This record gives sequence, C-alpha cells and structure tokens, in this order.
Amino acid sequence: MTQLHSLPEASLNQLFRVARTVNGFQSVPVSDETLHALYDLLKWGPTAFNAQPARYVFVRSAEAKEKLRPALSSGNVAQTLAASVTVIVAQDTRFFEHLPVQFPAYNAKPLFEANAALSLATAARNSSLQGAYLILAARALGLDAGPQSGFDPEQINKAFFPDGRYQVNFLVNLGVADPAGIRPRGPRLGFEEVAQIL
Amino acid sequence: MTQLHSLPEASLNQLFRVARTVNGFQSVPVSDETLHALYDLLKWGPTAFNAQPARYVFVRSAEAKEKLRPALSSGNVAQTLAASVTVIVAQDTRFFEHLPVQFPAYNAKPLFEANAALSLATAARNSSLQGAYLILAARALGLDAGPQSGFDPEQINKAFFPDGRYQVNFLVNLGVADPAGIRPRGPRLGFEEVAQIL
Repeated sequence: MTQLHSLPEASLNQLFRVARTVNGFQSVPVSDETLHALYDLLKWGPTAFNAQPARYVFVRSAEAKEKLRPALSSGNVAQTLAASVTVIVAQDTRFFEHLPVQFPAYNAKPLFEANAALSLATAARNSSLQGAYLILAARALGLDAGPQSGFDPEQINKAFFPDGRYQVNFLVNLGVADPAGIRPRGPRLGFEEVAQIL
Repeated sequence: MTQLHSLPEASLNQLFRVARTVNGFQSVPVSDETLHALYDLLKWGPTAFNAQPARYVFVRSAEAKEKLRPALSSGNVAQTLAASVTVIVAQDTRFFEHLPVQFPAYNAKPLFEANAALSLATAARNSSLQGAYLILAARALGLDAGPQSGFDPEQINKAFFPDGRYQVNFLVNLGVADPAGIRPRGPRLGFEEVAQIL
C-alpha cells in the first residue's frame, strides 16, 4: 500500500477543521505585499483550459469601501466595512481572449467565442473555483476570510465594472478575525447524505 | 504590524506551487477510509447559507467506470479509466430541503424554493466552491487530482442521476500521479492583468 503524504495536522486544521467564516475583524492592515502573495498562491489552482477567468478587485481604502457600501445587504455592511480588505471576485466574460497565450496546446478561443452559453458557464464555474482557491490561500497565509453573496450584483457591476466586460461573482472579506465576530458553527451533512462509492 | 501565521513552505508547495493537474495515474488503490477522510476535510469549507449543495459519486469499480466511459470526451478516457477514483461532483437542485437543519439562524428554505434562478445559481456557484475544496483537500492528503470538464453532461445525468434531482458539475480524477502523465505547466496571468487594489 502506497503511503500518502498528508500535510501536518496543524495545516489541515488551519485550512479546514478549525478555520471559520468570519463576521468581524480586528483593525489590522493588509499590505500590498500580502495581496500579491495571496495571488501568487491562488493563481496555481487549476482551471479548465487554464483559462483563469476570475478577476479580483481588492477594496481596501475608505473611499472604495464607500463605493461598495450601497450594494451590500444591510446585515453585511458592518463586517464589510470592518474587514481590512474586501475582494470582489469577478469573472471576465471575454476570458477567452487570453487562451492563445494561456493555453498553447491548441487554439481554443474560437470554441468559446462562438458559444456564449458555454463561455458564461465556464466563466462562472471556474471563477468560483478560483474564489475557493482564494479563500483557502488566504487561510494558508494566516488570514481569516468571510465570503458572502449578500449584495446587489447590478449595483456592484455598475459601480466597479461600467464597461460590462467583468461581472461580480461573490465577495470575500479578508483580515484578522475579531473572535466576537465568529458565529456558532453550522452542522455539516454526513457522508451518507451526500456521497456514494460505486 | 500583526504577524500572520502562514503554513510551512512545504504545505504551500504541496497545495499550490508544486501541485499539478494530473493526466496519468499509477495503479494505486484509494480506500473507503481515504474517501471518508477526504470528505471529512472538504466538508468544512464555507458555502452560502451553509447550504452544501455539492453531491459526490466516487466512481471506483470497473463496472462504474464503464458506465461513465461513454460520456467522456475521447481525450479524457484513458486518464479517467486509469485514475484510482473519478469523482462526479454534482449539485443537488433541491439543496434547500436541508436548510432548516443546516442553517438554523432562520428559515431560508422558502427563499430558494420560490426562486428557481436563485437556487440554480446558488447550487452551481457553491458546488463549484466545494469541488475546489475537494481538489485542495485531496492534495492536502497527498493525493493527486485531475479535474476535467470534457464530458457530455446529459449522458452522465441520465446514467447516474436518472430522477433528475442531481446534476453533474464537473469531474475530478484522483490517485497517485504517473509522472509521465503530467503535461508542461501553462503560464499564469500576472497580478496586473487580473487584479487591482483600490
């Protein structure tokens, strides 16, 4: 039997078991260097055709937070303003423009350019994967994350992506948790409820 | 300046920097225990409303692989048959049935039950997040992963989910890499091409 080489328990805990969605943050700045380090990890996560359709707006300044505020659900305003950075995870509807360089195996650009439904589904699926890589890469670097879907996408698109090429997928608050902002953990579905081995 | 507590470099490498999409596998069995350990990690990843819409079919036996084979793109057949397990990552279109237990904060079930478009988008986005958690949890446990979207979804749905409640999202081959099945790594978009700090 081949022995699998698992990460240390402490790493598994930091990434999955102990990590929590955070709804309150300490006042701790997150530097440009940390945001670059975050991208330099998450960028290695796999995407279909290496298409990397996700785009990221790191909303950090007070001015940019004010631009975001009107689009937020009322229950998400306080935590989003408190977060050191709020990431707008978006998708590039014309991600396929980059395929000739990013996916040199063959020319996949026409396949997507000619099929709007396939492009949209591919952008949505793979920018979601990349959003998950961002959440786990943030935890790997010692940041806490608070992903959220409670916002008005039209307002965010109008305010941040007026030319219509990018579209918001979801938001991720980043920073260092205020322990008071962690809610009781929800349960999880059991293996037998969600999985089968055939 | 608060010191962030990053994972050890070896963990970051195993998860992101050195990990590769795998297109060939050694003949190494993956046990039920490993599949349960995989789920027991990935299940902690966050989803909207703690809804956990992903469902997982671990296709491991020769019979089940044969059931999958006709739905695969021709270029993906050999690697999928060689993988120790192929995971069908699906979404439960009626995930909201579980919300009263999984999300006890308030009754969010009617919100989704009454809005098919919101339910579909929520199922697709969050089952994709969970698929990414699965990829990174597999790597964390020392498995190699080969995600793929090259298949006919209608055929998979008909063969594995005949009642229509679950729908395939994407596939993930799992096992131990055959180094000969790793292709040259594609480039990655630069920070300035995909991100901005506001």
